Amino acid sequence: MIPQETIVALATPSGAGAIAVIRLSGSDAITIAAEVFQSVSGKDITKQKTHTIHLGHIVDNGKVYDQVLLSIFKGPNSYTGENVVEISCHGSTFIQQQIIQLLLRKGAKMAQAGEFTLRAFLNGKLDLSQAEAVADLIASDNEASHQIAMQQMRGGFSNEIAKLREELLNFASLIELELDFAEEDVEFADRTAFHDLVERIEFVLKRLIDSFAVGNVIKNGISVAIVGEPNVGKSTLLNALLNEERAIVSDIAGTTRDTIEDELVIDGIGFRFIDTAGIRETKDVVESIGIQKTFEKMEQAQVVISLPNPSKGGAYETDILLREYEQLKNKFPQKPILVVINKMDLLENSQIDAIRLALPSCLFISAKNKIGIDELKEALLSFVNTGALRNNETIVTNTRHYDSLLKALEEIQKVKWGLNAGLSSDLMAIDIRSALHYFGEITGEVTNDELLGNIFANFCIGK
Amino acid sequence: MIPQETIVALATPSGAGAIAVIRLSGSDAITIAAEVFQSVSGKDITKQKTHTIHLGHIVDNGKVYDQVLLSIFKGPNSYTGENVVEISCHGSTFIQQQIIQLLLRKGAKMAQAGEFTLRAFLNGKLDLSQAEAVADLIASDNEASHQIAMQQMRGGFSNEIAKLREELLNFASLIELELDFAEEDVEFADRTAFHDLVERIEFVLKRLIDSFAVGNVIKNGISVAIVGEPNVGKSTLLNALLNEERAIVSDIAGTTRDTIEDELVIDGIGFRFIDTAGIRETKDVVESIGIQKTFEKMEQAQVVISLPNPSKGGAYETDILLREYEQLKNKFPQKPILVVINKMDLLENSQIDAIRLALPSCLFISAKNKIGIDELKEALLSFVNTGALRNNETIVTNTRHYDSLLKALEEIQKVKWGLNAGLSSDLMAIDIRSALHYFGEITGEVTNDELLGNIFANFCIGK
Repeated sequence: MIPQETIVALATPSGAGAIAVIRLSGSDAITIAAEVFQSVSGKDITKQKTHTIHLGHIVDNGKVYDQVLLSIFKGPNSYTGENVVEISCHGSTFIQQQIIQLLLRKGAKMAQAGEFTLRAFLNGKLDLSQAEAVADLIASDNEASHQIAMQQMRGGFSNEIAKLREELLNFASLIELELDFAEEDVEFADRTAFHDLVERIEFVLKRLIDSFAVGNVIKNGISVAIVGEPNVGKSTLLNALLNEERAIVSDIAGTTRDTIEDELVIDGIGFRFIDTAGIRETKDVVESIGIQKTFEKMEQAQVVISLPNPSKGGAYETDILLREYEQLKNKFPQKPILVVINKMDLLENSQIDAIRLALPSCLFISAKNKIGIDELKEALLSFVNTGALRNNETIVTNTRHYDSLLKALEEIQKVKWGLNAGLSSDLMAIDIRSALHYFGEITGEVTNDELLGNIFANFCIGK
Repeated sequence: MIPQETIVALATPSGAGAIAVIRLSGSDAITIAAEVFQSVSGKDITKQKTHTIHLGHIVDNGKVYDQVLLSIFKGPNSYTGENVVEISCHGSTFIQQQIIQLLLRKGAKMAQAGEFTLRAFLNGKLDLSQAEAVADLIASDNEASHQIAMQQMRGGFSNEIAKLREELLNFASLIELELDFAEEDVEFADRTAFHDLVERIEFVLKRLIDSFAVGNVIKNGISVAIVGEPNVGKSTLLNALLNEERAIVSDIAGTTRDTIEDELVIDGIGFRFIDTAGIRETKDVVESIGIQKTFEKMEQAQVVISLPNPSKGGAYETDILLREYEQLKNKFPQKPILVVINKMDLLENSQIDAIRLALPSCLFISAKNKIGIDELKEALLSFVNTGALRNNETIVTNTRHYDSLLKALEEIQKVKWGLNAGLSSDLMAIDIRSALHYFGEITGEVTNDELLGNIFANFCIGK
């Protein structure tokens, strides 16, 4: 299963920069590099130690391509576990191409997307969930997604799965031992301890599965529909929210600003705001259509902020506020709805008290004067269970892992049912093996070419 | 003059890739890196050898930023001559920013454009023309500009200047020795040998100055106006020319395809094609204005390809061909004009002979059938004196160097005149010192902050 070909690719982003790094991996990586590299000090790089750097020139047929630094990593002490050479050259696109083409002529093959990391997995340097975390890490664009990918890459998630797996394996071997003595009707595995163990595994699996809701939010952000008419202060509110965070958001590459109103990161969680028209009690047909569209956008959102419009005098009528809120709540009973009263500085205290009495969950802000913004951010964050994140618990972000965990849970629940029903050892053993199989899918102990192909196709070339 | 602050910058192109490299340089580079780096094997990186690589994590306050490879270069054995640390991290923009911000908090300063190379110059690792070649090398987008920048970076040009300088210095010291014995009227410097030397220096300077014409073409490409009406086969001709070269051209970043028709690289020389309307004998006012515009574009071009239109029957009338050619030649006596007859496969042999007789320099092609394309390429190349390039002679590409060489030549010619006129040693010594000054400007022995500022401002940050 261990590939022998030496692969080559640009490892740094394409385009011009001060330097670029070209990476070679494979059993011939060092000898191929040695063919085109002339050390300044005349050293033979095939005789150098691992983890050393050498200054020299890339030369072929008397033609000098570039002055470079060449780094040597000898397998298994490298990223891929194979011999690896990194050539740090001047960052001209022309030079990068010339050197890569030269290395191809000398026998290297162009690397496929993710092939370096695939080799690292095949050579046992990383398990599959760690390999997947490498891609997540490169794609991470905020604190929380970065933290989770980092934890996963360092083996946090794999360890959690490995622990479950080990306990299940003990269980399985005892049950299977019973099979050998089936005629004697012995029970090596203590059924009470067994029951406890299965419940414990079920509990951990449920926690991991539940964490996917948070993991998904962290990976993909949370969408917030802002319901309110244009003059009610939506953009002022957005600007107030974005105030300190804008710099971070605008640095994120590939932010799709076309389809969404605005994006902001609060405590490492991305929020996407979707602008919608306000809803008002109306009998007008055209206005009803507008309200219908608002409902559709709210349907798609995970959280709703409602910014009610005051009456003409600038005051709010509490019964209208309450009716509109109840209308939303009836329409979307499962969706968190946050009523935010803007321009609180223009309201009488008595009115604030009256509204608070009618709608205790309501928030008062002045977007213009930046009053109540922190409270609003906290309220938004409260819809995301970031407790797991803060407690450094394992959070599942990958749909593939989520699916395997769901299937493992199903099998474990079959085992539990079998245990309660006094099912025979041989039938229980099948369910346990099946649960083990799904654990193995996550870490890559159970795998196939199609699965690997799908996973690594999403990597960039050079990784 | 040696800076003490430790500077930091991203050295690889911005954007996401498999890996990114962050570079630190300065006396505290290693100690700053040591504050945030935890080696996997527990090594203290301040105690490691130069040119070694270490696997570990960037950690601060218990927070793990990334798993990285850290390379150590101890001054003076580094690019800048100072202590240098390169951190090879995962290529997420978020991670890059986080690590750079962390290093800034630990006391590093953000590097200015070209500051690493400026330090290399100030620390004597490179002379000024070599430092300038680094920027040229990064900007190089074809074989020829790459080769020249490479030669200049490796000191080829500096050596040439150094040789001239040394000979002049010998000369100068003898002349100045005579000044000490001025009352005795001795001549330490043999005036005949002197004269030979000055002529030799003059010859080399002239060659270098002349090479700038080629150097400029190589650096900036050569513009070719194609004169011809739309139906005459211009686009077929361009496509035929671009056929094998298009891939190379389209890979060049930042190619300004808006203002130019098409660009192609032949034997490492870039050609830019400017489309113009045809010229015809006419009395029509509107058509005359069009012809005027064609003349303006031809004025700007360095070479003209004229594609004449055949008469209605598909044949050419040699007297019209000749008249149009002479009209162009009279208008632009200094400009190379290449008359190209397309669709040669449709012509009778007798006609080809007749045209060849009237216009011997004329080229016959069939753009559609790719006949005569190589000959056309050769003809285009013949307008560029690539001999110097092929002979590996030093070619001047930098306007600043060109200016200094012109001034040095002027001074040398003054010395020569003085020698012939029997000028006194003290006056000649002034001219020689002045010539030496201009040589020093090229290699950076004579410099000032403004000059350095101008040169390094054109570098990218991180180089």
